Amino acid sequence: LASPDLHVVSVGTALPGSPIDNATLARRLGMDDLWRDWIDVFIGATNRHLSVDLDSGRILFSLADLCVTASRRALAAAGREPGDVDLIVMGTATPDMLMPTTVNVVADRLGIDHIPTFQLQSGCTGAFQALAVASDLLAARGRRTALVLGGDVGTKVFDHGVDISRLPRGEMVNYLLFGDGAGALVLETEPGPTSALLRKVTTKLTGLGRPPGQSLDWYGRRAPESDSRPILEDYKAIEELVPVMAAEIFQELLDDVGWKAGDVDYLLPPQLSTRMTTRVVESLPTTEAQVVSSIQQTANTGNATPFFQLERVLEQMTGGTRALAVSVESSKWIRAGFALEKV
Amino acid sequence: LASPDLHVVSVGTALPGSPIDNATLARRLGMDDLWRDWIDVFIGATNRHLSVDLDSGRILFSLADLCVTASRRALAAAGREPGDVDLIVMGTATPDMLMPTTVNVVADRLGIDHIPTFQLQSGCTGAFQALAVASDLLAARGRRTALVLGGDVGTKVFDHGVDISRLPRGEMVNYLLFGDGAGALVLETEPGPTSALLRKVTTKLTGLGRPPGQSLDWYGRRAPESDSRPILEDYKAIEELVPVMAAEIFQELLDDVGWKAGDVDYLLPPQLSTRMTTRVVESLPTTEAQVVSSIQQTANTGNATPFFQLERVLEQMTGGTRALAVSVESSKWIRAGFALEKV
Repeated sequence: LASPDLHVVSVGTALPGSPIDNATLARRLGMDDLWRDWIDVFIGATNRHLSVDLDSGRILFSLADLCVTASRRALAAAGREPGDVDLIVMGTATPDMLMPTTVNVVADRLGIDHIPTFQLQSGCTGAFQALAVASDLLAARGRRTALVLGGDVGTKVFDHGVDISRLPRGEMVNYLLFGDGAGALVLETEPGPTSALLRKVTTKLTGLGRPPGQSLDWYGRRAPESDSRPILEDYKAIEELVPVMAAEIFQELLDDVGWKAGDVDYLLPPQLSTRMTTRVVESLPTTEAQVVSSIQQTANTGNATPFFQLERVLEQMTGGTRALAVSVESSKWIRAGFALEKV
Repeated sequence: LASPDLHVVSVGTALPGSPIDNATLARRLGMDDLWRDWIDVFIGATNRHLSVDLDSGRILFSLADLCVTASRRALAAAGREPGDVDLIVMGTATPDMLMPTTVNVVADRLGIDHIPTFQLQSGCTGAFQALAVASDLLAARGRRTALVLGGDVGTKVFDHGVDISRLPRGEMVNYLLFGDGAGALVLETEPGPTSALLRKVTTKLTGLGRPPGQSLDWYGRRAPESDSRPILEDYKAIEELVPVMAAEIFQELLDDVGWKAGDVDYLLPPQLSTRMTTRVVESLPTTEAQVVSSIQQTANTGNATPFFQLERVLEQMTGGTRALAVSVESSKWIRAGFALEKV
């Protein structure tokens, strides 16, 4: 079967509230100046946005709130109405509730009905997974317009009211690494005035026999066991494996689309931290590509990250230029990526 | 684009532990005989299987455990090895953790690697959603074998140690309605010796402006608000809307595949309770079809339900017979169904 060409027509993003700088974050979390410097050097985020108000502890934005805003922006940029959407696929690690799913709450608030909607439970590669599923669903079904969503909000995962410094190190670091956000893109079978051709999107489990690099637990009516650890990270494994896997995806994508490393004009790397991004970029055989990152302004926004990168690169790409994105999900080691070309 | 024919080649299911009858359940939950009679009459389940040991409160089975068993059974029945699987799509409302996703833990334990895996967050229509996604992914990608999984385990949602009778009615009823279980099916582009042709699978959001009929919340590090309600059900809305929507799906599927109501030999209805199933069946314009239900043996197993029904019907179907399944997800009102034909 020959699949139709698919085009990323527009991207929209949303961030909650005002930017919170490192000094403010460190102060609110009761951390000293050493920590602020550590954030500067190792994480590299200057700002992040949070859905929780750090002073009052009140939750001001849900993931659905952010996804609705991002969707409206993406649809407006594509010149589409909610009623034009044939299909929605969303990726998130932190849905607002288990049921109803956030994707359906978003659809309802956009006024969308009578179409298939899917929500993928996913770590950092959720946007890639959603893009892969949406691509095949558009290709197989003869539909025109898919809305692809991704985002994460840490308000339920984290408790900004606790004494962060008493948490296990692997959990504490997450309060510094992550910001909240959401993104949306419009994927269509016909090109638009500012669209880029989606040459390839790939996502593959690659974790056989490897322990999880991170885990995130949830609780219902049953109380957590006293020794339960809702968040676990193996940063050593992440530091070691992510650059290796990123290089594998990079080469695999080049082979799939018939490009050489030097053909890549824009590189969209994983965005765990500036330090990690640098390590990843150094592991890739491309020295010419412009690195597209949003980490300084947003910190790591999980499943929203690729949308912030895409928003920037779509504005910059001129005819004939090529962009390549790579991502690694470390909870069970998923390799993902996509290749875009401005035609 | 002409999609290839797709075939349900085999089905496998898994139930945790021994069957628990109504008298035992009522006694363990501290309920009186009136309740036992109520279960008999309104829910209609004679037995259910639970992943928690009601005496000790210990959790004996995870959702991954059940999915691995069901997958092994489905693969064996199809004559396939784990290495033959090109793609896995799973649907569940109750993943073991948020990350890693259960589908990837299952893949790891089956020895599967280097393929795309997806986990859909979904209510009762998850098996239908997973089947729809797997179908389009097989069609678009030119792959042969998809493993489709679904299941739910209530061990984290419920707390069998609390005094159930003090819970709000809408939550208490869930302790009686649900059983744990999982199912798997092998979907292929070529028919097998016992396969049935998948003529159509459909899933559509249909909740615009309707309040959720049920909701299921999760908690992380942040403690739940004191007035939080992890589970809410609007059984009145469910009783009212499910039969109407089931009739809509039934007719839509008939139109899609060009069948008449009298052409349906086997009907796979929603399985909220025997009472609801009866109401649904009565709302459909088919009097001839044999109703395929597993509720008596398993109670409502959520996303596993269609697999228990499919397992039965695949054994019974002879050449030329037709089966039609309908399902309604009431958390945000998704209509779903599929049509099978033994050729």
